[in-house]
Amino acid sequence: MIFYYAPKTVSLASHIALEEASAKYEPKKLDFFATEQRSDEYLQINPKGRVPALDTGEGIISETPAILTYIAQTFPSANLAPLNDPFRFAKMQEFNAYLASTVHVNHAHKFRGTRWTDDESAIETMKAKVPQTMHDSFELIENNMFAGPWVLGENYSVCDGYVFCISLWLKGDSVDINDFPKIAKHNTRMLGRASVQSLLPIYGLS
Amino acid sequence: MIFYYAPKTVSLASHIALEEASAKYEPKKLDFFATEQRSDEYLQINPKGRVPALDTGEGIISETPAILTYIAQTFPSANLAPLNDPFRFAKMQEFNAYLASTVHVNHAHKFRGTRWTDDESAIETMKAKVPQTMHDSFELIENNMFAGPWVLGENYSVCDGYVFCISLWLKGDSVDINDFPKIAKHNTRMLGRASVQSLLPIYGLS
Repeated sequence: MIFYYAPKTVSLASHIALEEASAKYEPKKLDFFATEQRSDEYLQINPKGRVPALDTGEGIISETPAILTYIAQTFPSANLAPLNDPFRFAKMQEFNAYLASTVHVNHAHKFRGTRWTDDESAIETMKAKVPQTMHDSFELIENNMFAGPWVLGENYSVCDGYVFCISLWLKGDSVDINDFPKIAKHNTRMLGRASVQSLLPIYGLS
Repeated sequence: MIFYYAPKTVSLASHIALEEASAKYEPKKLDFFATEQRSDEYLQINPKGRVPALDTGEGIISETPAILTYIAQTFPSANLAPLNDPFRFAKMQEFNAYLASTVHVNHAHKFRGTRWTDDESAIETMKAKVPQTMHDSFELIENNMFAGPWVLGENYSVCDGYVFCISLWLKGDSVDINDFPKIAKHNTRMLGRASVQSLLPIYGLS
């Protein structure tokens, strides 16, 4: 497998899952400063021009929720998802879908406002609301979605690496992680995991 | 099961899947004009204040991609997803994740701009870009993601009801569906399915 990633992006969530699964893969770093994700070569791999992308040998998968579930399903012994219980599996997917389509999107209004408007001053007003939208999202996670000690309860899952990845963005979004005691504790616990420790240097976080 | 839905929303995608699965469920319509989705009673069911939500008896699931996969998994004889092939299952999930976190989000900048800015004039600039972002998204689907005759190829799947639902928004977003011949043909084919026919009246589409 080949895993396409970039520092400071959501690829960290899938990267953690690959490490947790003890998967054999070749990491390929894209240079976002050089907009390598928009190069003709990479657009052949992922026409969306984004990371992460996972070349499985059978073909390429993009979209974090899809990659996370694929890793959990193809490395069942790593026990990264409730694979044999459709309801609990759906709750895992619900959590990941919320991060992808609401929380990540809220955050994207800080640096990627040009996706949704061409107006410079409108982009500034979007940036101004990011602290509020990210705060509100994490409040919902803290109060309604986080079972504890891990996201889904007693067992670690792919949801944990995903919410950890996004929680690292809170500081830059002017949100105090300590407003969310469960998330803050979870963050500390995640930092102690071998999977995360091994990735911090390449994500510029150590 | 109880299915919470509202006309003119993305709940149609899951609603079609329930019909395709011949599931037994009680449909409960929320009145968005009366903002019933924000009522204390409904927030107990889905604290996000959105539809769809599916009360399975074991608990409540929200987020379209999670609900679609749950229906496919719990009604396997309906053959709504490639359940036994992790790679093809991931491609199904990738498609649904793209609709949820990119295409639906693009569309939401038309009517739900207040999610991301408090500035009235910024909201107008967001609205102005919706035709372009929706066009670009459907161009990618048409050229790179749609196998044909169904989304994933020879077999109908939950992806088909989902992309059909969102394609119904194109006209209102000032995008001509005929710019995308595969999607346009697919739309016509979907309109002929019994599942869709049975739902058109309650979605105000007949």
